[in-house]
Amino acid sequence: MEVRRHNAGFCAPHFLKLCRDQVERAIAHHDMLHPGERVLVAVSGGKDSLALWDLLVDLGYQADGLYLGLGIGEYSDESGDHARAFAQGRGLRLIEVDLREQYGYDIPTGARAARRVPCSACGLSKRHLFDAAAVEGGYDAVATGHNLDDEAAVLFGNVLRWHTEYIGRQQPVLPERDGFPRKVKPLVRLSERETAAYCVLKGIDYQVEECPMAAGNRHLGYKEALNLIEERSPGTKAAFYSEFIDKVADRFAVDTAAEQGALGACASCGAPTTGEVCAFCKLVERAGGHGADQPVSLTAKPASRR
Amino acid sequence: MEVRRHNAGFCAPHFLKLCRDQVERAIAHHDMLHPGERVLVAVSGGKDSLALWDLLVDLGYQADGLYLGLGIGEYSDESGDHARAFAQGRGLRLIEVDLREQYGYDIPTGARAARRVPCSACGLSKRHLFDAAAVEGGYDAVATGHNLDDEAAVLFGNVLRWHTEYIGRQQPVLPERDGFPRKVKPLVRLSERETAAYCVLKGIDYQVEECPMAAGNRHLGYKEALNLIEERSPGTKAAFYSEFIDKVADRFAVDTAAEQGALGACASCGAPTTGEVCAFCKLVERAGGHGADQPVSLTAKPASRR
Repeated sequence: MEVRRHNAGFCAPHFLKLCRDQVERAIAHHDMLHPGERVLVAVSGGKDSLALWDLLVDLGYQADGLYLGLGIGEYSDESGDHARAFAQGRGLRLIEVDLREQYGYDIPTGARAARRVPCSACGLSKRHLFDAAAVEGGYDAVATGHNLDDEAAVLFGNVLRWHTEYIGRQQPVLPERDGFPRKVKPLVRLSERETAAYCVLKGIDYQVEECPMAAGNRHLGYKEALNLIEERSPGTKAAFYSEFIDKVADRFAVDTAAEQGALGACASCGAPTTGEVCAFCKLVERAGGHGADQPVSLTAKPASRR
Repeated sequence: MEVRRHNAGFCAPHFLKLCRDQVERAIAHHDMLHPGERVLVAVSGGKDSLALWDLLVDLGYQADGLYLGLGIGEYSDESGDHARAFAQGRGLRLIEVDLREQYGYDIPTGARAARRVPCSACGLSKRHLFDAAAVEGGYDAVATGHNLDDEAAVLFGNVLRWHTEYIGRQQPVLPERDGFPRKVKPLVRLSERETAAYCVLKGIDYQVEECPMAAGNRHLGYKEALNLIEERSPGTKAAFYSEFIDKVADRFAVDTAAEQGALGACASCGAPTTGEVCAFCKLVERAGGHGADQPVSLTAKPASRR
């Protein structure tokens, strides 16, 4: 396995060691987790989340998984199967939440009803439900499988528009605050090619398909543009991200603080929010009742509910 | 002429007006030039510098051109012809400096002798000689033809590596200071497609070929990556650059100030420099005697001179 940005090739055992070392380093360098902590892993069934779960267990953390049923047709069915198979095979605990059963909507139809792009409705649902489950279950942190490619692409997108309030917030660890759990991204030192190779070498059977709703979104365009540059100058992506964290992020902290405002409790669910009702409850209000078998009427008023 | 980032199409007269308006706006917004000032235009013979010269004259500035003979084979011969033809056709004054005749080197062989990549030796030579000619000729400012694509690509390259000291310096106008003339970039609101169309519509015959020494350099890779994104989201490039200037550049000013240090006069030529001898004089010292007809011996010591 050739890793061009390290200018080195690795045999299987040393490649696995590299992955483990990079995750340990990220955790230590950013003070993400402490020995023996209880971690809730956001599990999608893809390469990143399963590699992450595997690595955290291997490193001695008490890591449970949380899988969200998003209702995105076959893609979701298969993703769930991979997550369950992984957990069962290793005797790990997988918590499951099904959007349709528990909140009355799925991503494709609910997003349309709420007039949000699917990726926005999905991200919002995930953030809220992972946070809520972590707080409720008394976990020390939520861990997500964002890898170097993801983080570099998000940073690139925010830098292209100079969304200063988002730029200041892009950290590999967000400390616990005001009812939000600590959030950590232990894979920020691994590329997506590496997490895929990790899974293959460890015999982890993951969902290979990308989410069909994400096809053609901006984020993938940013990844493509960065890959074009990485191809010519290996290491650019890692430098872009790590130099940002080390030398630049602080300069934008003030924008993030200004944007965050004062937090109260959501009148509906109690989650921390700057408004009366949190964004997730607003989404449920508008999207609820829009599961796959209840097609959306595009003429219905946005806030209407069945 | 369709301009997607303005979401509009233009007929020829209105397109020319658009270009003129954008240049006037850039000049006014950044306080680049004042009515009737004497401007030295850095002329390469390409679309940008000839469009710039044409527009500045049209807007009433006293604009002379300076053409540098870089000695890059046929490319330089043709570029010079275009610059001369433009000046003669309009009765404008074109100053010429020939690197080989006046400084004993040309870019291809001199760069090799000085162990610099050609684009680095070329940029250094241009900056020094344009500055020196402007100061000597008592011009109020040097104007260069950097367009939106150029500036966005340079910014992108600096942001990818977070070269904070360069990021802070990237401004459409650099005020006169310590022996450096004021430098202005009036084309920052026009894309390269637009300056090319401007030349075609105005009947300006320009050098179409790109410099053969720049082929495959990083800067072109950055342009390509940005074009990929611009294609999907028109306006991204303009937003990236202008939001940076308006909201972000100041945050990096301190890095630039720290890097600039105290300036003295070059012991050899008197130009402002932080060292004993300026970078241009060092280049001449190493590259001198390396014109095209005196091939470089690659085994010669870097500082050796014939």
